[in-house]
Amino acid sequence: MALIVQKFGGTSVGTPDRIKNVAARALATQAAGNDVVVIVSAMSGETNRLLKLASDMTSLPDSREIDALAATGEQVTAALMAIAIQALGGKARSFLGHQLKVLTDSAFTKARIKAIDATRVMETIASGTIAVVAGFQGVDEEGNITTLGRGGSDTSAVAIAAAIGAAACEIYTDVDGVYTTDPNICKTARKIERISYEEMLELASLGAKVLQIRSVEVAMKYGVPVHVRSSFSDAPGTWVVGEESSLESISVTGVAYDKGEVRVMLVGVDDKPGVVAHIFSRLADENISVDMIIQNAPSDAPMSRVSAGGPDSKTDVTFTATKADLPKVKQVIGEIAEQVSALGIRYDEDIAKVSIVGLGMRSHAGVAAKMFKILSDEGINIQAISTSEIKISCLVATKYTELAVRALHDGFGLGNKP
Amino acid sequence: MALIVQKFGGTSVGTPDRIKNVAARALATQAAGNDVVVIVSAMSGETNRLLKLASDMTSLPDSREIDALAATGEQVTAALMAIAIQALGGKARSFLGHQLKVLTDSAFTKARIKAIDATRVMETIASGTIAVVAGFQGVDEEGNITTLGRGGSDTSAVAIAAAIGAAACEIYTDVDGVYTTDPNICKTARKIERISYEEMLELASLGAKVLQIRSVEVAMKYGVPVHVRSSFSDAPGTWVVGEESSLESISVTGVAYDKGEVRVMLVGVDDKPGVVAHIFSRLADENISVDMIIQNAPSDAPMSRVSAGGPDSKTDVTFTATKADLPKVKQVIGEIAEQVSALGIRYDEDIAKVSIVGLGMRSHAGVAAKMFKILSDEGINIQAISTSEIKISCLVATKYTELAVRALHDGFGLGNKP
Repeated sequence: MALIVQKFGGTSVGTPDRIKNVAARALATQAAGNDVVVIVSAMSGETNRLLKLASDMTSLPDSREIDALAATGEQVTAALMAIAIQALGGKARSFLGHQLKVLTDSAFTKARIKAIDATRVMETIASGTIAVVAGFQGVDEEGNITTLGRGGSDTSAVAIAAAIGAAACEIYTDVDGVYTTDPNICKTARKIERISYEEMLELASLGAKVLQIRSVEVAMKYGVPVHVRSSFSDAPGTWVVGEESSLESISVTGVAYDKGEVRVMLVGVDDKPGVVAHIFSRLADENISVDMIIQNAPSDAPMSRVSAGGPDSKTDVTFTATKADLPKVKQVIGEIAEQVSALGIRYDEDIAKVSIVGLGMRSHAGVAAKMFKILSDEGINIQAISTSEIKISCLVATKYTELAVRALHDGFGLGNKP
Repeated sequence: MALIVQKFGGTSVGTPDRIKNVAARALATQAAGNDVVVIVSAMSGETNRLLKLASDMTSLPDSREIDALAATGEQVTAALMAIAIQALGGKARSFLGHQLKVLTDSAFTKARIKAIDATRVMETIASGTIAVVAGFQGVDEEGNITTLGRGGSDTSAVAIAAAIGAAACEIYTDVDGVYTTDPNICKTARKIERISYEEMLELASLGAKVLQIRSVEVAMKYGVPVHVRSSFSDAPGTWVVGEESSLESISVTGVAYDKGEVRVMLVGVDDKPGVVAHIFSRLADENISVDMIIQNAPSDAPMSRVSAGGPDSKTDVTFTATKADLPKVKQVIGEIAEQVSALGIRYDEDIAKVSIVGLGMRSHAGVAAKMFKILSDEGINIQAISTSEIKISCLVATKYTELAVRALHDGFGLGNKP
């Protein structure tokens, strides 16, 4: 007898019939001898419908009210799911964020969970009742309704699984797991059976399509085994688990790409302590998310001058941000450039980030060199490089994205079963 | 500076544009020097949409879940209204039943308010902010979401007005007030300027179209002046107020009718103590609402035999119930008839109830006689009569309804300004 959390996304509960299917699945899980907690998203399209109503009022609606508005989407699904389970002869009871005391901070539209009181869920399942919880929502200290941001129901599910000590958190979605790369551009892409939390985090651009990345952080923190799988089949999906469970022998686990970024270069900024800190704290002030940060010597500067770090030293600072943030970047970057005496500003939207991710690269030497050689063999020029312990990212021209992904996927042997 | 509660029904908030109009009205009321609390219903059609989703699941959905589902309708409007007020430059904050602690019993789908904590509303308006409250909903002792039944937002509004000591509770609707009778069948029907709570209660069949009758009970209990008016004009509507404010000189205030009832007669039941009590307690057990109750002597019985009340005495008991309850009546009436040794059961669906209502009739003799004469002059046969202190109701054949209403309306001079 295990305690299982099952989370169903918007597509999985998009119609009354699909809600009935999901209800049957939860009951089957219970009939197999488990205690079951179901977390639901809003029916697909509902959140957008609600936000459209708000945008009919004003272009800048208040975020507290947006949360009160958007939270109704999950409330509707939770009530309908409880009714559907009851209609199939089961026992069920719906719960909202404030009823379970899913306590969050007051950062409306992107709140973070601080604590969950597991009492009511535990009482409910103890009586053989399926607890149906509205995902995405919480309540702050003052009783205001908060939401956790797009995809927040994944985080609700994992946090509740952690709070009640569930054996597993099953994330049901419309794809059947996490793949070694995007199957749409690489036919040999393979479903990953097990992946570590760390790799999943680094594979954000692949993983975000199936799992909100914050939920992985929570799962890692509390050691919740997460099972990403399809709500339209019974086939096992991908287990996201602690590091000890993953297979150390593979150097690279997956290949990710992201065409949604823009490269910004501040040319010839003062190479003095505090300058870089100033740039990025100003960007953070404007709520601009920066991904890669690369500080490199200007190609025309003698190395000695740069490394001297004297009062006249100049350096180039490159960063990438999302294309959606580009208008905000343009608003603020002129002022920043002036403050750091930059000689120029360059934008490049025609870039893509291609990354390889794998725990194994920590212990396998030469992974980076192999990546660069694979790209070079295809005639792909690398415009910038950024590395972490388990990830290497290269910026390339957008047109090379698919070629680079396929070459890396094949080059690291990901298409074959290990 | 007064404290005003404004309640807007589903039609008044049925589209984003209408919500904006209502927001402007609330701000205008505030700009005139008042503190304002706004109560909103679900956008028109929304509650039905939600209940349809539930009925897609099962024909008998759980009432606790129905309440969690239906309450989202008002939550959506409340958030949108707050956003609309803000978009016009005002300050607003939405509140749900559980946030204000609108404490109710646990009778899901028809809960009754037990208490309201006015603290948060008072704090909100003290800062010049308009408090926007989701109507229709409350929360029980366990934190379950409850709803107050169709039209329950009226009751929410009046109860909140009572809790905060508002100077007036304005009920905005799609008609411009309470009329002396139905304007659709009587062209001389006139808008009533002031009416007492008691008269409003007795005029239920007219009043229910504009004001949930339970809200009048609450208004009467706490002495809240209620102003029923149109959200589409600035014209004053009808004030529903305490008795001392109404105009005692008029004998009859309005003429109501109801075609929705069925007459049931138990013929020749034992005329013994406890028999009538038994009949109606059994009907109450089945949750059948009974309106008129008339116990009369069977026309073929000598008066002496009836009044003797001996062991063999027989009497006829007539009552009316809503047509919707007729199937339930038929299920149980056979058993009741047997228990009270009734000689027969008769139903008549071809009846209408026509009523005159007026505080003045308490002090004006001959009002009943005048009513009977007016009907008789039109050749309308009266099938049953029931009277209260401020209301006289007659059952007539359905086909006479409109004729009876017009004759009474003119006969009591209601079409002319007093």
